[in-house]
Amino acid sequence: MPEFQTVRGMRDFLAKEAAAMKYVEALTRELARLYGFQEIITPIMESYELLAAKSGEEIRQRMYTFEDLGGRKVALRPEFTASIARLMASTLRNEPKPLRLYCFGSLYRYDEPQFGRYREFWQSNYELIGTSRPEADVEILSLTNDLFQRIGLRDCHFKIGHVGIVKGILSAEGMKEQSQNRVMQLLDKKQWNDALTIAKKLKVSEKCLDTLKKVFEIKGEDSEKVLKEIKKTVKDHEKAVTATENLKEILMLLQKGGVELDMTIEAGFARGLEYYTGIIYEVTVPELDVSIAGGGRYDRLIELFGGEPVPAVGIAHGIDRITLAMEKQQIQPKTMLGMRVMIVSIGEEPRGEALKIASMLRNAGVPVELEVMGRTVSRALQDADRKGATHAIILGPKEMEKQEVTLRDMKKREQSTIKVQNLLEEIRKTQA
Amino acid sequence: MPEFQTVRGMRDFLAKEAAAMKYVEALTRELARLYGFQEIITPIMESYELLAAKSGEEIRQRMYTFEDLGGRKVALRPEFTASIARLMASTLRNEPKPLRLYCFGSLYRYDEPQFGRYREFWQSNYELIGTSRPEADVEILSLTNDLFQRIGLRDCHFKIGHVGIVKGILSAEGMKEQSQNRVMQLLDKKQWNDALTIAKKLKVSEKCLDTLKKVFEIKGEDSEKVLKEIKKTVKDHEKAVTATENLKEILMLLQKGGVELDMTIEAGFARGLEYYTGIIYEVTVPELDVSIAGGGRYDRLIELFGGEPVPAVGIAHGIDRITLAMEKQQIQPKTMLGMRVMIVSIGEEPRGEALKIASMLRNAGVPVELEVMGRTVSRALQDADRKGATHAIILGPKEMEKQEVTLRDMKKREQSTIKVQNLLEEIRKTQA
Repeated sequence: MPEFQTVRGMRDFLAKEAAAMKYVEALTRELARLYGFQEIITPIMESYELLAAKSGEEIRQRMYTFEDLGGRKVALRPEFTASIARLMASTLRNEPKPLRLYCFGSLYRYDEPQFGRYREFWQSNYELIGTSRPEADVEILSLTNDLFQRIGLRDCHFKIGHVGIVKGILSAEGMKEQSQNRVMQLLDKKQWNDALTIAKKLKVSEKCLDTLKKVFEIKGEDSEKVLKEIKKTVKDHEKAVTATENLKEILMLLQKGGVELDMTIEAGFARGLEYYTGIIYEVTVPELDVSIAGGGRYDRLIELFGGEPVPAVGIAHGIDRITLAMEKQQIQPKTMLGMRVMIVSIGEEPRGEALKIASMLRNAGVPVELEVMGRTVSRALQDADRKGATHAIILGPKEMEKQEVTLRDMKKREQSTIKVQNLLEEIRKTQA
Repeated sequence: MPEFQTVRGMRDFLAKEAAAMKYVEALTRELARLYGFQEIITPIMESYELLAAKSGEEIRQRMYTFEDLGGRKVALRPEFTASIARLMASTLRNEPKPLRLYCFGSLYRYDEPQFGRYREFWQSNYELIGTSRPEADVEILSLTNDLFQRIGLRDCHFKIGHVGIVKGILSAEGMKEQSQNRVMQLLDKKQWNDALTIAKKLKVSEKCLDTLKKVFEIKGEDSEKVLKEIKKTVKDHEKAVTATENLKEILMLLQKGGVELDMTIEAGFARGLEYYTGIIYEVTVPELDVSIAGGGRYDRLIELFGGEPVPAVGIAHGIDRITLAMEKQQIQPKTMLGMRVMIVSIGEEPRGEALKIASMLRNAGVPVELEVMGRTVSRALQDADRKGATHAIILGPKEMEKQEVTLRDMKKREQSTIKVQNLLEEIRKTQA
């Protein structure tokens, strides 16, 4: 039989990497708790129609799409928001608002594999549903900032834009939504000239083209200055002005709330997903070419999926990318190794007693590895050392008759004979 | 746009069900820690060849199989063990033994949906690799028993068999492995007569057929008695005798170790997966028609996948089935709701301050929900009540000038004015 490998773009996470993934996952779940988000679980497989509806051409073409045995056209989810919108348009339709939903899981896109970009990836996803107020936008940004601070990631940079600026200009020219989305897709790929060419083809006025050209060039870290410049440039486009004011209100509240983000405002910033209607953002670290978080406001998606009109805002954090950033920045998961006890029996006889002692210790929360290879004590102790065990318990037939065992402190390399009933206490004592 | 639904056989887990799933998941992870199992993560998608190789015809036909955009024949994993065996035959080939591996995740089978059986399901999976000793088999059974005891599940019943008994008889007659597997598949479906018919067609001797017929009928709860009966019945088939002795050794060590299982030994018991070589088991509760855990020994799988010959034993626990059993037995996840604080601002002005207070409380571990709907205080308090908030903090512009807020105890319906700097202390006081 040939050697089997993972499918291209898929990965295994061995103990160390898996521990980092689970560490970040636990932090995202803790933040959900602290911010009042309820966890839900949605399926990895959804109908193709649902996932394709508003994800955008780019992502649509890179979905894992296939027919199940019942002839249904299905796909593996490339993102969470379509599933959330489906729920909001059906089961959760009548839930009181606001609704804060959190989910965690794996997602699938047929991207060209590169560092930080894989075909199977993990996200924590937060959606705040039921309000269009800036408090909600600020909450999502604040939560994200909290996450990265708790992890200890340095130099997180927020790129912030608002799709209402460019779309506000285009819609004033009567451009259809579908064409607007084509322009936005090009912006996402930073193809500003192609975006202008398409706009021109679609008979956008010279004046408007001129405005767009200027808008695409506006960006900077001084948000007050940038917002003033955007406002001046788009002043003849009412919707774009409203969008700029919304962005300003969010950024001001962020500042008032003491949430300090290292950020760039970019007027021509767009994201791949075509359902956004308001503020959008992505977070990067210098060490990675890909973003570690991204999201924004999508006030019309739920309605488009057949639900009530419900405004919403959300973000996804790229868990595997965050662990890569941690690795690059040499940040260790804050997990305590603590005690690790190895139990070895001399001969077959004490094996039953070994199980009982293991059970007693585990019930007290102590991790225990039982010798299962039938090795000699010295071989087993070598292995215990290699694995970083803090204690070894050695059971000999003679000692067992007196209900005694040998307890070895692996660090100090000292050992003594102890009554079984005093074992837990002794182990805890040496640990303190 | 039509109302979108989940794909047939797929489910959403809303807050309460998701909390139960995450509760059981956390317990399985805690047991992995206590027993010294390292967590790893393997992809949901694997090559079809890998997953099909030794899973058995039944499961092979019900896999979600498709071609990816690169023309690779892939499938969604129907179980974990093939991926673990792939790792053991490649990346983990030279790891020192024993190796204890834990993984948790979703799996996919195109089964006919019924209560407890869905097309997407979750398992915690433990594999103890590198030893054929009974200590290892006992460890897996002990861990499983611990899990169900920690959850508080009642009436868990272990069905235990050993594939070496029937296979030992068949191989003595020179029956090929593939044919043996066909017989075992029929046993798994409890089609004992069909199994006998096939054995007859394959020219198994009359005497052997007679033995098989007797073996299929041997089962009971008194393990000593059952084992004696099996041994007597298979006495002319050396390999079957060895298998019976192995089973006896495991059950005796289990007893010596004080692990008391409610069990039935069944000589003709088989499982769907065709890679088992030794003891096999399934756990059921009276409330469910489907098993909540299942596993066994597979000493030849890793070798078949191109690795070194490495004996191994493992088990998978059905997480969503366990939560169904909990529901049926009215067992609540032991999660503490604890404090839940709602913060409401009167007017726009104090919103920045509200964010700062929220951040201060969250840093102290207190879950906080900010009012994001712009509602009046009384409407917001109604909502806080509905959500089971323990405290509300009300920020008015006048109080804020004095760095004061109103703290409301939602249970006692009392409120008082508090300095912001004393807030955390006050909240903790009312909670104690």
